[in-house]
Amino acid sequence: MQKKIIQILGLATLGVLLTFCSQKEKSDKNQPKLSLTAQGVEQIKKDMGKYPLFEKSFATLVKETNLDMNLGINVPIPKDPAGGYTHNRHKQNYITMYGAGIIYQLTGEQKYADYVTQMLLEYAKMYPTLGYHPVDKSYARGRLFWQQLNDAVWLVYTSQAYDFIKGQLSEEDKKIIEKDLLLAHANFLSIESTHVFNLIHNHGVWAASAVGMAGYAMNNDELVQRALYGVKVDDSVEDKNPKGFFAQLDLLFSPDGYYTEGPYYQRYALLPYIMFAQAIDNNNPEYEIFEYRDQILRKAVEATLQLTHSDGKLIPFNDALKNMTYKAPELINAVDIIYNKFPEEKGLLGVAIEQDRVIVNQAGLKVAKAIAEGEAQPFKRISIELRDGVEGNNGAVGILRSDDSKEATSAIMKYASQGMGHGHFDRLAIMLHDNGNEILSDYGAARYVNVEYKHGGRYLPENKTWAKQTVAHNTVVMDETTQFEANVKAADLVSAERWFFSANDDDQISIMSGKENNAYGTANAQRTVALIHGNELFDHSIVIDVFKIKDDKKHTYDLPYYYKGQLIHTNVDYVNYTTQRETMGDSYGYQHLWKEAKGEPSGETMQTVWKNDGRFYTITTEAKPNDEIFFTSIGANDPEFSLRNEKGFMFRRTNTAETTFVNVIEAHGNKNFDTELVENQVGMVSGVKTLIDNDNYTLIQIDTRKDKSLTLAIANIINDKSANHTVTANNKEYSWQGTYFLFED
Amino acid sequence: MQKKIIQILGLATLGVLLTFCSQKEKSDKNQPKLSLTAQGVEQIKKDMGKYPLFEKSFATLVKETNLDMNLGINVPIPKDPAGGYTHNRHKQNYITMYGAGIIYQLTGEQKYADYVTQMLLEYAKMYPTLGYHPVDKSYARGRLFWQQLNDAVWLVYTSQAYDFIKGQLSEEDKKIIEKDLLLAHANFLSIESTHVFNLIHNHGVWAASAVGMAGYAMNNDELVQRALYGVKVDDSVEDKNPKGFFAQLDLLFSPDGYYTEGPYYQRYALLPYIMFAQAIDNNNPEYEIFEYRDQILRKAVEATLQLTHSDGKLIPFNDALKNMTYKAPELINAVDIIYNKFPEEKGLLGVAIEQDRVIVNQAGLKVAKAIAEGEAQPFKRISIELRDGVEGNNGAVGILRSDDSKEATSAIMKYASQGMGHGHFDRLAIMLHDNGNEILSDYGAARYVNVEYKHGGRYLPENKTWAKQTVAHNTVVMDETTQFEANVKAADLVSAERWFFSANDDDQISIMSGKENNAYGTANAQRTVALIHGNELFDHSIVIDVFKIKDDKKHTYDLPYYYKGQLIHTNVDYVNYTTQRETMGDSYGYQHLWKEAKGEPSGETMQTVWKNDGRFYTITTEAKPNDEIFFTSIGANDPEFSLRNEKGFMFRRTNTAETTFVNVIEAHGNKNFDTELVENQVGMVSGVKTLIDNDNYTLIQIDTRKDKSLTLAIANIINDKSANHTVTANNKEYSWQGTYFLFED
Repeated sequence: MQKKIIQILGLATLGVLLTFCSQKEKSDKNQPKLSLTAQGVEQIKKDMGKYPLFEKSFATLVKETNLDMNLGINVPIPKDPAGGYTHNRHKQNYITMYGAGIIYQLTGEQKYADYVTQMLLEYAKMYPTLGYHPVDKSYARGRLFWQQLNDAVWLVYTSQAYDFIKGQLSEEDKKIIEKDLLLAHANFLSIESTHVFNLIHNHGVWAASAVGMAGYAMNNDELVQRALYGVKVDDSVEDKNPKGFFAQLDLLFSPDGYYTEGPYYQRYALLPYIMFAQAIDNNNPEYEIFEYRDQILRKAVEATLQLTHSDGKLIPFNDALKNMTYKAPELINAVDIIYNKFPEEKGLLGVAIEQDRVIVNQAGLKVAKAIAEGEAQPFKRISIELRDGVEGNNGAVGILRSDDSKEATSAIMKYASQGMGHGHFDRLAIMLHDNGNEILSDYGAARYVNVEYKHGGRYLPENKTWAKQTVAHNTVVMDETTQFEANVKAADLVSAERWFFSANDDDQISIMSGKENNAYGTANAQRTVALIHGNELFDHSIVIDVFKIKDDKKHTYDLPYYYKGQLIHTNVDYVNYTTQRETMGDSYGYQHLWKEAKGEPSGETMQTVWKNDGRFYTITTEAKPNDEIFFTSIGANDPEFSLRNEKGFMFRRTNTAETTFVNVIEAHGNKNFDTELVENQVGMVSGVKTLIDNDNYTLIQIDTRKDKSLTLAIANIINDKSANHTVTANNKEYSWQGTYFLFED
Repeated sequence: MQKKIIQILGLATLGVLLTFCSQKEKSDKNQPKLSLTAQGVEQIKKDMGKYPLFEKSFATLVKETNLDMNLGINVPIPKDPAGGYTHNRHKQNYITMYGAGIIYQLTGEQKYADYVTQMLLEYAKMYPTLGYHPVDKSYARGRLFWQQLNDAVWLVYTSQAYDFIKGQLSEEDKKIIEKDLLLAHANFLSIESTHVFNLIHNHGVWAASAVGMAGYAMNNDELVQRALYGVKVDDSVEDKNPKGFFAQLDLLFSPDGYYTEGPYYQRYALLPYIMFAQAIDNNNPEYEIFEYRDQILRKAVEATLQLTHSDGKLIPFNDALKNMTYKAPELINAVDIIYNKFPEEKGLLGVAIEQDRVIVNQAGLKVAKAIAEGEAQPFKRISIELRDGVEGNNGAVGILRSDDSKEATSAIMKYASQGMGHGHFDRLAIMLHDNGNEILSDYGAARYVNVEYKHGGRYLPENKTWAKQTVAHNTVVMDETTQFEANVKAADLVSAERWFFSANDDDQISIMSGKENNAYGTANAQRTVALIHGNELFDHSIVIDVFKIKDDKKHTYDLPYYYKGQLIHTNVDYVNYTTQRETMGDSYGYQHLWKEAKGEPSGETMQTVWKNDGRFYTITTEAKPNDEIFFTSIGANDPEFSLRNEKGFMFRRTNTAETTFVNVIEAHGNKNFDTELVENQVGMVSGVKTLIDNDNYTLIQIDTRKDKSLTLAIANIINDKSANHTVTANNKEYSWQGTYFLFED
């Protein structure tokens, strides 16, 4: 086994291994005790070399850590914003200290302990001299970083690094590091920053975890208690609000484990929860932290994984960077630590195989062992409704999936709450994913994280002016104005509502329906999205999308769809603005859309076709008199070339109090790039029409080129699986039981 | 082995295998004899099951063939253009007949022979009733297809299918099929269509191969001789022009195996050459066809493979669809057949592994066997200059590669001839590929092949108005006019010229230089492109690009670059047309460019940064007084939304008789999508300036942020490796030997 590892690590790290077996036992049996425990260290030493994924992950950690250690100890005076040198350096420092500490524990090689010790002493020397970070761009400035959030992350890792090497420090160094650095910083993040620390918010979770980890590392129970229960400020009512880690477990996840800011931040928020929970479990097992609130942490991790596509990318609604996947370090930690506690969840091992890395501690060892022993099962993505809100009463995010293959069709709808500061005004917005690609997309956030050229890596102005606005999403815009008139506070008070959600593997129809009664003033909106799969009429799946909105006053209603791929064909009569281009409007995001063309229906049915990665997509739209359709591209009013120039079309109905947009999106055909053969470029759906649409019922008929049709019936008021309904349309009687039904003719 | 194959094929094809061993021997020992020979059949039967890739390829062939055979025999009256039903059906018919014929030979199962027989009889019944195809869009209308080219391809495959099942036909059926179909069609393609058949052109090659294959299949030597030597029309001088297959071997490839239309058509053109050559070799080995013209067919296949990027995609200059790779069936055939004749070329096996499929005949068997026996070596992409023209005198395509890894940087320049009908006006155009991605791209063709919605799958009008125009390429445009004023005939008469090309693995510099003295009227142009790799100053490679042009009258010179990725930063002073957009011009392709922004240098150096797939690219440009820079996007005057809306920038110098554009493109840095960490987003190159630029010499100095600089010296007139040069610039003396030199300070 030594030979094998040496091959992996290369000769440069041979030293590590030679000392591996002759290591001196310096640490007492209670140290380390945070993420990696003394017993864990013993277990790993015993099993080292047995499990390939662990072996490889350890080798990678050694390689990465050595690479950075070779640059020496650099503790610069904080100066730069995100993306700048001092920012990146302090980030890298905690990562490398953490890695070096682990390696020291597992190999006993002194240079790793010395590196951490020296680095900590440098920090301890500098720390007392620091005021706030010179970049004043955050509501909570840090000391080492421009925002306190990063300072908290720093302490989460650094406390662990300290824990790893504490056993070999002199009493004097220990005292200096604890007093001048760890305790001082923990106090800064808590007592001196109660406006962050007591928040029920991802920033508060990081702060609590940082302080708690520091507490465990220093055997300071006062800090631990502070982390768990928050800082008492005074006797005001406000101070009686729940705070601290337990409150954050109670209040930040829904009962289904959904975190209201959305998948991108859920991934990020999980790390402090999971790491601190592991430390709590190691030191205060009596809290049964992983059982807390019906295993809320397990649910939160599994919800995050369900919120990924088959390529591992997180579904990018709300503020989200679009390339984030389940390979993120946060999710490697989460998957390993949750599997460690819930080893019956074999699907987590399937994710770990894709992640291709485990954390180097007892949890990662257990995962690697189980994989080596063939216990892994593929992670199964399912159709799922994740309720939002502490009680699960604030709407939901619904995901319909045709199956659990890589090529599956998924339709996602957000009928949840705003999602706090990182939420978008996107009530009832949908996304569509098929064949491994985004088909109808959400823009995500306007940000180039850590790219200093782009506003220091922070959110761009266009995040507010474009990405958060309603028109940036696949949902209805009323009177060219953002939902809630773009008032975040108003939007935060109320959520959309679940109407029904039904998905069984046996049915050819999966369906979800949500309602929104606040975002559009006095108007009431309902969107129903059905996924028809496994029907032999179609090559792949079709999605039926019914958006119903009603007010007592007349409005303009716009329904944009942003598609990925190349436009191939449209049957609408249009004028293409081929030599001069103007914007779609002046405000609420319309100023960022170029008007490429404007059209009107050429008949009763509008059809537009695009192609993505060898598959064709046809959207079939029921046309109504005076309908307008716009072809748009994102990128107007973008002086710094920051926006991605993606394409959309927008259906507009004017001067009407109520309307229902009915669309069917069909995935069909195939272009083989090797042979250049093209099959089924013309879709099967030939038309769609509304048979009935009133307060009680909506019936939609989908016609095909095969003289067969489907009719979807929806009950809009009575949501009862056992209720019987009968309606007549075109002299034909439709009877069914339950809230929806799919008729086939 | 039976069990294994059954697992692969599934139960449905069990019948195939049960008859496999009990097959009746119907074919005589001289049949089949085209691509697959009787001896080949014996060998394959003996080795069946031994070599996984062959086994899998056979299973795939059976699966694909069965799938289509299940639809029954369909021989519709020709009606549709490319992409339509009858077009696709006739294409699929020859593919399936060919597959069924092979399966019959290898398994003896009667239903496969019956299928081919019935299909051929149906065709023989219909064929005499056909006139020209109803779609009149080609200079050479076919009978089964809108263009004769497809008719020829049909006959290449169908002749082979006939050869496979001929042994079990009744004499009467044989006579009907030969007389009414194969001979009639061969005569149509040759005697009745001499304007195509005698062409030295890819259409002529297909026609010759079709007629020759039919000749071998029917033992009709007259057809074979016609294929080899062309049709004699009369005694005119014109008729004395070389024609037929040998002439096509002499005249369509350069001595380096380069085919003047470019890689996309080279791939396509290879198939009839290679298939027919195999048939010739099987039947007339005395011609030593694979030795002909110093192994020109081997050279042609290897040149095609060198013209692919590390992801297998063909370099897309001239008319080219951009997703075409070396997995194309034509190149599977080519690789297998060439390896069969030249088994010392082990790199071909590396390609075959990537192709993941072999042809089901003796050549494919040999490839699969060699792979199974561990003989494969990776195909090594190298820096190479492929000369154009029969004598190698018509310029060249140069490729510089930093190394042979997947992440390699490659710079490509076309300083060749026009490339006949599929050529573009792109003299001295460059492309840049790095880290597996296009970085500076060529648009390729404006066409959606086989997509009926898009002009029946034919070339779009925009192919002529945009894709072929000079401004669509990364090369200089004079006075906003295309090279040769877009006159194809004039362009076809003259080519660009090779100046020098030098690439040794040991050197940190690879370099190529081409000259063009006709495309810009009386002006003389020279472009030199150097790739610096393995220099520790830089993360990755840098490319130095020096475009020198000189006339005796003043002109406007534009140098556009089309980049792939997201613009991140520029230091030029620019006005962004954020609310209204206009085109760059009215003609020569400028009408298809939106003017997004216009700028001027803010100092002596212009720098623009973009990001592609986690890596940053900075172009550093020497600024001169009155320089203008435009930021553009493709897509104006595109009424049918056919163009891809890709981005570019364009440097403009006005009112000058001569100028030299000096640019350095640096690949640097890294964004890790999992951790979101960003490294080295600021490039190392800080400036570039011309030290000397006259008729004799050009010296370019590249400054870096490390106070080190590089100076590239180029001799513009004396091309002599042993010549000594000395020049003085800024009081410093530069002395070197040879046509170029890289000084490091």
